[in-house]
Amino acid sequence: MTKESDSPNAQIVAQEIESLAINEDHSETHDQKITPWEVEGAVVDGAQVAIDYTKLIQYFGTKEIDNELLTRFEKVTGEKPHMFMRRGIFFSHRDLHNILDRFEQKKPFYLYTGRGPSKGHMHLGHMLPFVFCKWLQDVFDVPLVIQLTDDEKFLFKNGLSLEDAYKFSLSTVREIAALGFKPEKTFIFSDLDYVGGPFYKNIIKISRSITGSTAKAVFGFTDTDCVGKVFYPCIQIAPAFSSSFPELFGGRKDIPCLIPCGIDQDPYFRLTRDISVKLGHPKPALIHSKFLPALQGSKSKMSSSLENTAIFTSDTQAQIKNKINRHAFSGGADTLELHRLHGGNPDIDVPYQYMEYFVDDDAFLKNLYDGYKRGEITTGEMKQHCIKVIQEFLAEFQKNENSVTEEDVKKFMDKSYPRHFPLFEKK
Amino acid sequence: MTKESDSPNAQIVAQEIESLAINEDHSETHDQKITPWEVEGAVVDGAQVAIDYTKLIQYFGTKEIDNELLTRFEKVTGEKPHMFMRRGIFFSHRDLHNILDRFEQKKPFYLYTGRGPSKGHMHLGHMLPFVFCKWLQDVFDVPLVIQLTDDEKFLFKNGLSLEDAYKFSLSTVREIAALGFKPEKTFIFSDLDYVGGPFYKNIIKISRSITGSTAKAVFGFTDTDCVGKVFYPCIQIAPAFSSSFPELFGGRKDIPCLIPCGIDQDPYFRLTRDISVKLGHPKPALIHSKFLPALQGSKSKMSSSLENTAIFTSDTQAQIKNKINRHAFSGGADTLELHRLHGGNPDIDVPYQYMEYFVDDDAFLKNLYDGYKRGEITTGEMKQHCIKVIQEFLAEFQKNENSVTEEDVKKFMDKSYPRHFPLFEKK
Repeated sequence: MTKESDSPNAQIVAQEIESLAINEDHSETHDQKITPWEVEGAVVDGAQVAIDYTKLIQYFGTKEIDNELLTRFEKVTGEKPHMFMRRGIFFSHRDLHNILDRFEQKKPFYLYTGRGPSKGHMHLGHMLPFVFCKWLQDVFDVPLVIQLTDDEKFLFKNGLSLEDAYKFSLSTVREIAALGFKPEKTFIFSDLDYVGGPFYKNIIKISRSITGSTAKAVFGFTDTDCVGKVFYPCIQIAPAFSSSFPELFGGRKDIPCLIPCGIDQDPYFRLTRDISVKLGHPKPALIHSKFLPALQGSKSKMSSSLENTAIFTSDTQAQIKNKINRHAFSGGADTLELHRLHGGNPDIDVPYQYMEYFVDDDAFLKNLYDGYKRGEITTGEMKQHCIKVIQEFLAEFQKNENSVTEEDVKKFMDKSYPRHFPLFEKK
Repeated sequence: MTKESDSPNAQIVAQEIESLAINEDHSETHDQKITPWEVEGAVVDGAQVAIDYTKLIQYFGTKEIDNELLTRFEKVTGEKPHMFMRRGIFFSHRDLHNILDRFEQKKPFYLYTGRGPSKGHMHLGHMLPFVFCKWLQDVFDVPLVIQLTDDEKFLFKNGLSLEDAYKFSLSTVREIAALGFKPEKTFIFSDLDYVGGPFYKNIIKISRSITGSTAKAVFGFTDTDCVGKVFYPCIQIAPAFSSSFPELFGGRKDIPCLIPCGIDQDPYFRLTRDISVKLGHPKPALIHSKFLPALQGSKSKMSSSLENTAIFTSDTQAQIKNKINRHAFSGGADTLELHRLHGGNPDIDVPYQYMEYFVDDDAFLKNLYDGYKRGEITTGEMKQHCIKVIQEFLAEFQKNENSVTEEDVKKFMDKSYPRHFPLFEKK
């Protein structure tokens, strides 16, 4: 997984290569590019536009999370859907109904997410799937496995040493732990550590089910890519099969999982669903999120390698304030007078959008939205709200992270640490 | 490794694909095919001819084991070169001089060989590299690592289950143990078991050093091959680096190895030698063997899947006798009268050739050779000698194999079993 982080690689799915090849140099219009390694809005007449998520649902063949599904979710779990679901941040899914069925029937399943650990600290976009996973785990009380794809990082990032990639995994565990996960419920593993045994056996089985042609078509690899890259998808597919974790699931291969992930990860799991059938595993269910926009706006996502596109978990209170004040794209009018007169556009206003990710209170958000539109709330005021929200969120996070011990990290990464779940108890 | 065993796959190196494509259907002449998965003599005017090993040395760019090297070997080790070396069965090498240098200088190195475990028992051709390795280990007293490539078998053999591939590994350990190896000196590992940790880390580093184009050029893969196959060479390359075995070599990466192998394995290790330099490991040295001919003659090698081409380690005394009497290609004249008159040709006589592999006594062999040429020794007599030699060899082997215990197998496969070597002792 290279969730919410950029890589220098320009891997694009086959169809997109084609459309690019057609358009290149002939026009300044091209389609949006969404792959596990690259996220970029379309370019129309030379101008980059926001990512079109509806188009992605059609293109990927996934399903929208609609009101009917939200209603059912609340009915089955007894919990109001998470704000990310209410607001269409997690906007798309595959087979989420099946997971709700199993929950209703008290049948076991598990959650799987992951992250490609990178240098330094996560940014806010990286935290999204974990915040959501934590909530899902609280609602369902099922196991969560978190794959740290340090092998992928090494394969896809030129110049990164394997030793550093592994070090990044360990610091990532600290950050994930700081979000409130419990080792009693959660298994976090580095591929470089955990590959072997039953996990490697599944990887090898998977690797026999994917031809070079398929890998090229799904991920856009070419013969200039190293063989590690072409093989890598097998590593990310393996955690979707419960038999990869005999310590957690007692060797059972019939336990399905739910994978909350960025929509850019869908190619991996589309392929996983095909392979599941061939290898006799249940298909994983998916729930897809949109990207946390870059400070510069919805045309791209936060990037670790571009300092001023992202707010990092390690940013100080002053840095958060400066970044939002200086770099956050505003939907306000050009002058205060015009803003008072015509109002602003919250739909493209980054400070407002960020609050959708971090403020649970729907009524408070609606007031901001309407007030901004009417010009009653200024750009400066919107930014102040956003700064306060993110400062509070990160202050809490940083306090937690400082209290995570070496011992805690080991517990998360101990495959045999005792873990218990109601759905997994024998009747 | 798929040493001395056939697979249904027709993988051929790129240049050979080309030459085949040119010749196909236009002529009944084509070049010999020697790849890790296929060994076949050239076809000239519709007739298959014996494998031309001199041509292979040129084609692969290896060095002949000449008299000068044999003399030096004896001088440095104090041992008469093994009959396989004296007789040009191990006929080719890369950097064997460097290994002799290290032995002279009392610097450590190790031996690496392997086998793709397959159903049932090994045949005599499978045993060759092990017999030779055992001797090399006795001469040098250095560690030997034996890789059982059950993952490769699974990837390259349609219809084989992973579970069976792994089972074959365990039975292979029994057979290898029966050749007299000691767990105190030898580490035997199944890829499916041992991949992980430092070994996986080396695999991943290697996998970043090989592009798809290189894998295609070296091994003849196409996009219809599964990604597992294209990745697989990384698994076979990793044991050539001492840091893959921290339990044996304390994490040192500067210890070179010597790889005795069939000449068909050279593509793997040619690639290994390129990669070694990039990754800062010493280049492995190689010593290459010819193939043990099929009972039908030197045009092909013994094949596990063609029962009557091979003598298996499990064959009874009667089976050995019948196979040689009925199927072994004879270099004798058409009738006894003609044989007495013109003599036979020991150079194409399979029973004679087999004895070159199993009889150490050069003088005895020379008598057979000359007597056969002069027509004094008949085809029937030559076969009787051969039958006796192989019956004795396998009777001894089978007795040993029966005495190998579960406990012995575990010791060989225990990476932490205590092992000591003079060259590795700290001064």
